[in-house]
Amino acid sequence: MNPAFLKQAIEHAAESARRGGGPFAALVVKDGVPIAAGANRVTASNDPTAHAEIVAIREACRVLASFQLTGCEVYCSCEPCPMCLGALFWARPARIFYAATAADAAAAGFDDALIYGQLALPPAGRAIPMIHVPDGSSARPFEEWNARSENVRY
Amino acid sequence: MNPAFLKQAIEHAAESARRGGGPFAALVVKDGVPIAAGANRVTASNDPTAHAEIVAIREACRVLASFQLTGCEVYCSCEPCPMCLGALFWARPARIFYAATAADAAAAGFDDALIYGQLALPPAGRAIPMIHVPDGSSARPFEEWNARSENVRY
Repeated sequence: MNPAFLKQAIEHAAESARRGGGPFAALVVKDGVPIAAGANRVTASNDPTAHAEIVAIREACRVLASFQLTGCEVYCSCEPCPMCLGALFWARPARIFYAATAADAAAAGFDDALIYGQLALPPAGRAIPMIHVPDGSSARPFEEWNARSENVRY
Repeated sequence: MNPAFLKQAIEHAAESARRGGGPFAALVVKDGVPIAAGANRVTASNDPTAHAEIVAIREACRVLASFQLTGCEVYCSCEPCPMCLGALFWARPARIFYAATAADAAAAGFDDALIYGQLALPPAGRAIPMIHVPDGSSARPFEEWNARSENVRY
């Protein structure tokens, strides 16, 4: 853990907010060297997935030409929301450091804490209902996947 | 709920798997008309965030020139993973339908169920540790954000 990288993420987040972007940023570090940074640009790019961590992960993967962040550390100005937590688990860095908490984000008007709460509910009972519709062909994509021996697991 | 759209998502997912992509797809529908579709392209694009739902949300938002999917329905070949669930909550469609379950995805070798389990653990105890490092300046991005009256809430 290098506190200078955490401060760099916080300063990037403050700068993003000053310019009208979301008040969040993240930095990906490999072997002690920052390789990618991202700030929230949801409203600037009309992309609700353009959270700081997602932007930084995508850029770091582009730099590494890999869909994995093996051995990397990610420094976040704020605790990742559930979307970004999921993205980080799929990218599989070694560890993640964050400064502000989800409660701090909620106090500033962001829904992170709400979404964490929704995850614990049964899908159909969530604020946005997620409805399971069984379909006899739903296993077909997995059967196609398993039929290929040369798949790259991710 | 239009079962034809769910079948369309499943067929798209099977086609993606046949071509070597991930066995997942999603379709965004507004006013009864599909406006965007996405299949998983994690390995093809070296982007661990390129799940079907994320690809479809980004495309639908581009089509609508909005960071919200107000009034839309999303049809998923499989229950969204935590990353995609979070993305859907940020995009705020009216409702979500899915065919296969997270357990089906796990049986096919995908980590969705693992990540759902990780979310319930304290951050520092997760398989990828998420470590809270308090920093005296961590509130600054939110202060900058709140100092601007013209912010677009997202």
